[in-house]
Amino acid sequence: MTKEIRVGIAGYGNLGRGVESAISQNKDMTLVGVFTRREPKDVQLLSEQVPVHKLDEIESFTEDIDVLILCGGSKNDLPEQGPALAKHFTTVDSFDTHAKIPEYFAAVDEVAKEAGTTAIISVGWDPGLFSINRLMGESILPEGETYTFWGKGLSQGHSDAVRRVEGVKAGVQYTLPAEDAINRVRNGEHPELSTKDKHTRECYVVLEEGASADQVRETIVTMPDYFADYDTIVHFITEEELRLDHAKMPHGGFVIRSGNTGKHTDQVIEFSLKLDSNPEFTSSVLVAYARAAYKLQQKGDTGAKTVYDIAPGLLSPKSPAAIRKELL
Amino acid sequence: MTKEIRVGIAGYGNLGRGVESAISQNKDMTLVGVFTRREPKDVQLLSEQVPVHKLDEIESFTEDIDVLILCGGSKNDLPEQGPALAKHFTTVDSFDTHAKIPEYFAAVDEVAKEAGTTAIISVGWDPGLFSINRLMGESILPEGETYTFWGKGLSQGHSDAVRRVEGVKAGVQYTLPAEDAINRVRNGEHPELSTKDKHTRECYVVLEEGASADQVRETIVTMPDYFADYDTIVHFITEEELRLDHAKMPHGGFVIRSGNTGKHTDQVIEFSLKLDSNPEFTSSVLVAYARAAYKLQQKGDTGAKTVYDIAPGLLSPKSPAAIRKELL
Repeated sequence: MTKEIRVGIAGYGNLGRGVESAISQNKDMTLVGVFTRREPKDVQLLSEQVPVHKLDEIESFTEDIDVLILCGGSKNDLPEQGPALAKHFTTVDSFDTHAKIPEYFAAVDEVAKEAGTTAIISVGWDPGLFSINRLMGESILPEGETYTFWGKGLSQGHSDAVRRVEGVKAGVQYTLPAEDAINRVRNGEHPELSTKDKHTRECYVVLEEGASADQVRETIVTMPDYFADYDTIVHFITEEELRLDHAKMPHGGFVIRSGNTGKHTDQVIEFSLKLDSNPEFTSSVLVAYARAAYKLQQKGDTGAKTVYDIAPGLLSPKSPAAIRKELL
Repeated sequence: MTKEIRVGIAGYGNLGRGVESAISQNKDMTLVGVFTRREPKDVQLLSEQVPVHKLDEIESFTEDIDVLILCGGSKNDLPEQGPALAKHFTTVDSFDTHAKIPEYFAAVDEVAKEAGTTAIISVGWDPGLFSINRLMGESILPEGETYTFWGKGLSQGHSDAVRRVEGVKAGVQYTLPAEDAINRVRNGEHPELSTKDKHTRECYVVLEEGASADQVRETIVTMPDYFADYDTIVHFITEEELRLDHAKMPHGGFVIRSGNTGKHTDQVIEFSLKLDSNPEFTSSVLVAYARAAYKLQQKGDTGAKTVYDIAPGLLSPKSPAAIRKELL
């Protein structure tokens, strides 16, 4: 039997908790420890079997961990942790500040190549699975257009903006793909669509006592940058309804490539996700790519990688012969 | 500037014609010749610039071709041509007899490894893109079910099989997905569905004069690998009806992975194709993988491969840095 892949988690928020849960679904992996900047005794894992350590002691665990999954944020944690930890561990992360990917890749690549580790960056669904589908779409259908739609999904920034409106006690905001735009794309039209053409925004608001619903609605839908340019729908609900129906973090979206072959033959490729939990799904993608990172490092293929460098077969716990026989 | 990839086509039917057309959409490739078992002068290409040669003279072109795309059929052509041509060329093919893939892979692998060529087998959309999505679905969401639906569409392989039946003058075959089954899957149910529950196969057949309809029907519906496991309906029509109503080759389908993370959170991944021309789309996939085959052979990664062995970035004419910046 192949030995189990020993995984560590650096950072234990929604993403880290999702990774812990995902590892328990993968029989070829074992979680050997969680590393945190908080006091270890204050961190409550899902499993009582797994030890929690201080992140700044992680270097003494290099012999115990095959792959370290970095669950910090892209803004403040990963730019520093990515290169620092790739010096000692084969890593996977979900760095998603799009504009800074080239610079982050270069920083991690230099360290990882020197250390002989493998670091797969920017893993998840966007960047990640959506990126793969954008690339495959344009490579297979060079004459065409690619459309990415996001939603239905909970947006933190827009939910915060709603909650800052006077008279709002609590609330959440969802981004929804515009059905008519999706249908135009699916039907083989190649419309030019801005982000606001492609999406609508839906708010669920609990009012402060005595607040005016009309005034709150008006303030929201006319809010510059956030809502004014979009079709925005505002629903008023009770605190009870908010707690019961809007506690999850759903998300999803569509990547559609609409292209032509031959004499203007329409061909449409569509990839979509309908996720009841955004962080749990991202975590599951990270864990599958952790397996790939381990395999690559084992065969000496080191340095920084992205999803574009990962052959699909590396994601599976099954042998190449088994996947050809069972899944091809 | 990178030099153009010099491509050859072996076999010029619907698929070969689609490959010729697809190469013209890819600026980094050039079609250097078409090879046929017919009389070259009888083969009319889309472009008058490209020479047509006899297939049995192909070995004198080893220095002129970087990748040879095999456009023969899976039943009679590829089992022989695949290994024979991998001895002299880096190849891509669309071998699609699922049950025989392991044996075909082994035969091609042995030859290609010895010759130092790279041979990507079973490329297209199923096997091919659908296979990738089946594998990624179960790797990312280990607790769940994968469903593949085909159609509505005309299947080339199955139509070929129908046309080879004695007494059949002409004919086409359509695969139809069962809508109610798709909806159950999308709704997060995890129904147990046999291939028969998910699809029916519908054949439109023109009989040779004097042929027995009953005998033709019986031969079709009991054909192993192709029809024996399905509900198959055979209609008999006139040549005129065939020409008027069944000239297009649409196809498509769905791969849906419905899984759970955490505490039974529903997550659904869906990949779908809506194709106005199946052979032109398959051809476009073959051409993108021809680029990957060329890159792999250039770096010494030889032997038989499937889509599972191909990192997505290899499909793109763009540099790794460009795809990270533009598409990730």
